[in-house]
Amino acid sequence: MIKTLGDRLLHIQRQKRSAVCVGIDPRFESLPPEFSSAQNGSSPELKALAFSKFSESIISQVAPYAIAIKPQLAFFESLGTPGWQAFEDICRLGREAGLLVIADAKRGDIGTTAEAYADAFLLPKNNGKPLADACTINAYLGTDGIQPFINRGQEVGGGAFVIVKTSNPSSIQIQDLKTTDGRTVADVMADLVETCNMGSSNPPCDGQYGTLGAVVGATFPRELGALRQRLPRTFLLIPGYGAQGGRPCDVVHGFDKNGEGAIVSASRSITFPWGSTQSCPHNWMEVIAAAVKTMRDEIQLALSERKTTPGRR
Amino acid sequence: MIKTLGDRLLHIQRQKRSAVCVGIDPRFESLPPEFSSAQNGSSPELKALAFSKFSESIISQVAPYAIAIKPQLAFFESLGTPGWQAFEDICRLGREAGLLVIADAKRGDIGTTAEAYADAFLLPKNNGKPLADACTINAYLGTDGIQPFINRGQEVGGGAFVIVKTSNPSSIQIQDLKTTDGRTVADVMADLVETCNMGSSNPPCDGQYGTLGAVVGATFPRELGALRQRLPRTFLLIPGYGAQGGRPCDVVHGFDKNGEGAIVSASRSITFPWGSTQSCPHNWMEVIAAAVKTMRDEIQLALSERKTTPGRR
Repeated sequence: MIKTLGDRLLHIQRQKRSAVCVGIDPRFESLPPEFSSAQNGSSPELKALAFSKFSESIISQVAPYAIAIKPQLAFFESLGTPGWQAFEDICRLGREAGLLVIADAKRGDIGTTAEAYADAFLLPKNNGKPLADACTINAYLGTDGIQPFINRGQEVGGGAFVIVKTSNPSSIQIQDLKTTDGRTVADVMADLVETCNMGSSNPPCDGQYGTLGAVVGATFPRELGALRQRLPRTFLLIPGYGAQGGRPCDVVHGFDKNGEGAIVSASRSITFPWGSTQSCPHNWMEVIAAAVKTMRDEIQLALSERKTTPGRR
Repeated sequence: MIKTLGDRLLHIQRQKRSAVCVGIDPRFESLPPEFSSAQNGSSPELKALAFSKFSESIISQVAPYAIAIKPQLAFFESLGTPGWQAFEDICRLGREAGLLVIADAKRGDIGTTAEAYADAFLLPKNNGKPLADACTINAYLGTDGIQPFINRGQEVGGGAFVIVKTSNPSSIQIQDLKTTDGRTVADVMADLVETCNMGSSNPPCDGQYGTLGAVVGATFPRELGALRQRLPRTFLLIPGYGAQGGRPCDVVHGFDKNGEGAIVSASRSITFPWGSTQSCPHNWMEVIAAAVKTMRDEIQLALSERKTTPGRR
């Protein structure tokens, strides 16, 4: 029997004692100098190659400490076709390094269109492997857009993370709206996800977490804790750690009582801790490895402290 | 001074006396037989070539009657890198045929990520042209994700259509939620769009319609009429015509009092009126041309009837 995405994540989380996901958002202005020949005026092909090579270095440095990578499609699409090629290369490299791959795509459509997106990310290709283990999706269009990812995900042990509550300031404009039954829009979205995860087409197996995950930002810790309670069968992806302001004491609210069931994602603070290219140290690979190790240790420490503090769940 | 996307649409609408947008959603099971060698087990490259060639035929047939094409990214992404190449080819062919190109991407992200998406679709490339005139976006994350498309759009006369109310059954799950101030979530989304369209960074020019458009489905005519009122400076994109159930008498509610300010999109009913490949007639190109001409005429007729009916706005 194929494990669900959530249970696969749980398994690798226990094995590696880590809850770290590294976001790969390549930005020219921050690439180490050896890639900066591709910085100005060069062709999309050269730029895409620089993204690809730099990402390869990231993957090699973070593989011992992280459990997943999360390449952000936008930066690759901004280079057009060569960017998509680089994105595909990076997914393969991540998989070969033993990391789960979460395509940060935030796709959201319905019917056969949603099926085509599910095929793009989750359908095994010629090499027998899907492009990614999961992608992020936006369900403003309702469950019509979620079901194809459940169907395809179940076949391959993959799935999708539905955006529930994001870490940016303007997330309050829609997600925090209070509805007449007392729930916020984010609460309603969470309930849709949990219901789909428990639904008849996706029966709870012996494991703990389902085919769907949920994205809940680190920067609103109170909401994070409340949504953790609301989503008992749903693995959480928590972005907004590091550069965006989320701290270890914030993200622990997203984990279950065993200190599991969530992964925390950081991008810039791991992959570009130096800021701009000019400030990039010559030993940048070691700097990346140190940053991801620190992140892993800080989160594990915060989780173990929470466990041993009486009165905390 | 560069015209806004809305005013460019208005201009071409008056010029061509048409409100038709043709959705390009290539599906293998419906391609005419001459492309069906790429149907089963062939490489993504061959499949993408079939998509590209078929779309070229569509564009040549619809160009006299439609004002825009709307290629759906999902079907191209399901073929990976060769699919992206085909998508880029189709955007170029559409532009060369004098059609506006709306990339149906439904992207939605924030900050520099949203900027990268805006760059992907709206930034002029090496040939001096952006990939598309507009793309569809999902603003569940709030206005943080809208602003980059306004900024980039203003520079090139392009923009974005924000999804407000969609035509699928489960759209009610989030979009129709009633909030405590009496508005639905779709109403709140519409108000965000209209406010952005009127905002200081995007001052109303002499024209009528702004840089942002809104997507409002044809299958809920009452909501369509109400949202038209709510969005006086926002051009509407109305999907769901034809195969999804929207009729001429439904879509007229999305037009302003001059019978302008909206485009109506149909996909399958124009590009695959025959259904599956087996039923494809030998004169399929003429069938496509006839279908799009009929759609144009039906909508123009319904609009002129509305104008001459006393008591209707």
